[in-house]
Amino acid sequence: MIGVWLEDGRISVRDDLPDPRPGPGEAVIRVLAAGICGTDLELGRGYRPFRGIPGHEFVGRVEDGPGDWPGSRVVGEINVTCRARGAPPCPACAAGRPSHCRDRTIVGITGRDGAFAERLVLPAVNLHHVPDGVSDDAAAFAEPLAAAFRILEQVDVGPDDRVLVLGPGRLGRLVARVLGGTGCELTVAGRSGAGLSRAAAAGVATCLADALGEREYDIAIDCTGAPAGFDLARGALRPGGRLVLKSTYAGELALDASRLVVDEITVIGSRCGPFPAALDALSAGAVRVEDLIDDRFPLDAAPRAFERAAEPGVLKVLLTPRGSSSPAPA
Amino acid sequence: MIGVWLEDGRISVRDDLPDPRPGPGEAVIRVLAAGICGTDLELGRGYRPFRGIPGHEFVGRVEDGPGDWPGSRVVGEINVTCRARGAPPCPACAAGRPSHCRDRTIVGITGRDGAFAERLVLPAVNLHHVPDGVSDDAAAFAEPLAAAFRILEQVDVGPDDRVLVLGPGRLGRLVARVLGGTGCELTVAGRSGAGLSRAAAAGVATCLADALGEREYDIAIDCTGAPAGFDLARGALRPGGRLVLKSTYAGELALDASRLVVDEITVIGSRCGPFPAALDALSAGAVRVEDLIDDRFPLDAAPRAFERAAEPGVLKVLLTPRGSSSPAPA
Repeated sequence: MIGVWLEDGRISVRDDLPDPRPGPGEAVIRVLAAGICGTDLELGRGYRPFRGIPGHEFVGRVEDGPGDWPGSRVVGEINVTCRARGAPPCPACAAGRPSHCRDRTIVGITGRDGAFAERLVLPAVNLHHVPDGVSDDAAAFAEPLAAAFRILEQVDVGPDDRVLVLGPGRLGRLVARVLGGTGCELTVAGRSGAGLSRAAAAGVATCLADALGEREYDIAIDCTGAPAGFDLARGALRPGGRLVLKSTYAGELALDASRLVVDEITVIGSRCGPFPAALDALSAGAVRVEDLIDDRFPLDAAPRAFERAAEPGVLKVLLTPRGSSSPAPA
Repeated sequence: MIGVWLEDGRISVRDDLPDPRPGPGEAVIRVLAAGICGTDLELGRGYRPFRGIPGHEFVGRVEDGPGDWPGSRVVGEINVTCRARGAPPCPACAAGRPSHCRDRTIVGITGRDGAFAERLVLPAVNLHHVPDGVSDDAAAFAEPLAAAFRILEQVDVGPDDRVLVLGPGRLGRLVARVLGGTGCELTVAGRSGAGLSRAAAAGVATCLADALGEREYDIAIDCTGAPAGFDLARGALRPGGRLVLKSTYAGELALDASRLVVDEITVIGSRCGPFPAALDALSAGAVRVEDLIDDRFPLDAAPRAFERAAEPGVLKVLLTPRGSSSPAPA
C-alpha cells in the first residue's frame, strides 16, 4: 500500500508498504482523512525517535474487524494499552488509568504504525463510531478536539473565570473553542499578528503576547509548543492561578520554582482526552472545526503537505489518501 | 532594643535598634521564642534582598495593642495585607485571597521587621491566641506547621495514597507529621543517611533518594530546597500524580515540560497555611514538634545560631531573647 514512511527523522512516500495485518480483536481501517499536527512535524524534523508510519488524527472506515465494526465510519483513540493487546494489566491499567498504560504503544508516535497510509490497524476497543451528521473533515479533528476537552476534565472553568489561551495555532484554536463553550471570559494571545488576526476575524478576543497584562488571568493554557509560552502564561496568571500545559516539545524549560511556590501556581500537564465529548460537540455543532482546514493533499504529496503545515499561520492540513475527502454535509 | 540586623546579605546583632512603634490596629509583641528556617538562612547568605530585622516564626506576648489583646500569648500570620494596613483592597484581597495580597509586606522577609528582636509589631488581625496547653517551644512552630497544613487544603490525601516527602529537614519533618495524620502510606526520602536515620528513629518509613523506585507514588512533596528535589519527585510519581512544591530557593529549575504533559503531572506551588489547624494540632497533641528542636541561643548569639542551623542534619534552632524559653507543660 501507499503510505508515509518516517526513518532517521525524515519522511518519504513509499508504495511498497505491506498491508497491515490485524491481530486478535483488531480492526483494519481504510483511512478517509488524516490531519497533520505539531507532533508529526516534530517527528518529521527528527526531534523524536520513531521509525514507521506516522499520523494519529484520522477518520476511516472499518474494512475488517470483530463484531459489528466492519462498514462503520470510525475515529480511534491513540493509546493502545497492554490490556488491549491481551497482556496482563500494568499498574496504571489495573488502577483504571489506561491512557497512562506503562506499556502502551501510541498510534503513529511510539511502537505502532499510524494513519498516514491507505490503511491502519487498531484494537476495536480503541474505536468510536462517527455520528452520521459529522463530515469526514470534521471527524478528522476528533483526536485533537478530545485533547482540548481533556482540560475540562482537569480544571473547573466557568463564567467567572478569565481564561488565557496562549498560541493561536492548531491546538490553541481548538482549545479556545472548547473553553469558549463554558462561558468564561476568553482571550487568545500570540506573538504574531497574522495568527491572531485570523482568530480575531473568527470572533475571538485576542491580545499580542507583548501586551499581556500581569496577574490578570485565573487560568492560562499554554498551546504555544515553545518554552517561552510557559513564562508568558505564568506572568499573566494571578496568584493561585492554574496553568495548563497542553503542548509537548523537545527541549527543557527553565523556570523559577520559587515564583510558583510564592504565587501558589498550579501547573497541570494535559494530554489525551475524551472522544465521546469531542464527537458529541461535533455532532451538535457546539464546536466548529472545518474552517480551520487550510489545505489538503493526497498521500503521495505528503512531503509538500508537511511543508505546508509548517508554514507560519497555517492551521490544519489534511492528507486524503485518494486525493479527496467527502464534502461536509449540507 | 537588642535585635538581629540584616543588611547587604549579612547578619549582625545590634543593641541600638529603636523600639518598634505600633500604627493603628497594630500590637506590640514581646518575643518569647523565634525559630530559624531555611528562608532566614538564605537571607543571611544574601540570596534574597532584605534590609531589616529577619525572623518570621515566633511566639510572643502582647504588650500593647487594641481590644483584649494585651497580655495574650500569640503567634502571628506573616502576610500583612493592604487591608490590614488600612489601604484600599488590591485585586487579590478584594477576591478573598489575602495571603496573595499584591501589596503585602511579609514579616522579616519583605518590607517589614521580623521577630529576631526583643519586640515586633504586627496588625492585631494577624494574631492568633496560643492555647494554654501549648508550650512556647511548640508555639514557635505554628507558622511552618501551618505551611505544612496548607498541603491538605490543596490536595486530597487519604489512606489509599502512597505519599513521598522529599527532604528530611525542618520542613520535611513537619510535612511528614501532618501528612502522616491522614493515614496515607508515607515515605520520607533524602540524600544523606544521617537525616534519614533520625527520621527513621522517630518511626517514619524512609528511603535513600538513590534507591527510590520510579512511578511508585501518588503524591510527592518536595521539601528539599534544591532543584534536584524536583526531578527526584517527578521521577518517583506515577502518571497522573501530584507534585507539591513546598520550599523556595534561589536559582532556576530546568525541567522537561513534555514529561509533565505526557505523564499529566500536576505541580502545585504551596506556601502559607492555616494557623488554626496548626494550633489545634499542637493543642490536641496530634502533631509533636518539640523533639525537632536541636538547639537554642540567646538573641545576642544569633550569628552562632545561624551557623548551627546551617549545619547538615540540624533541624530547628530557636532564638530566645532572654536566653531561655518556658519549659514544655507537664
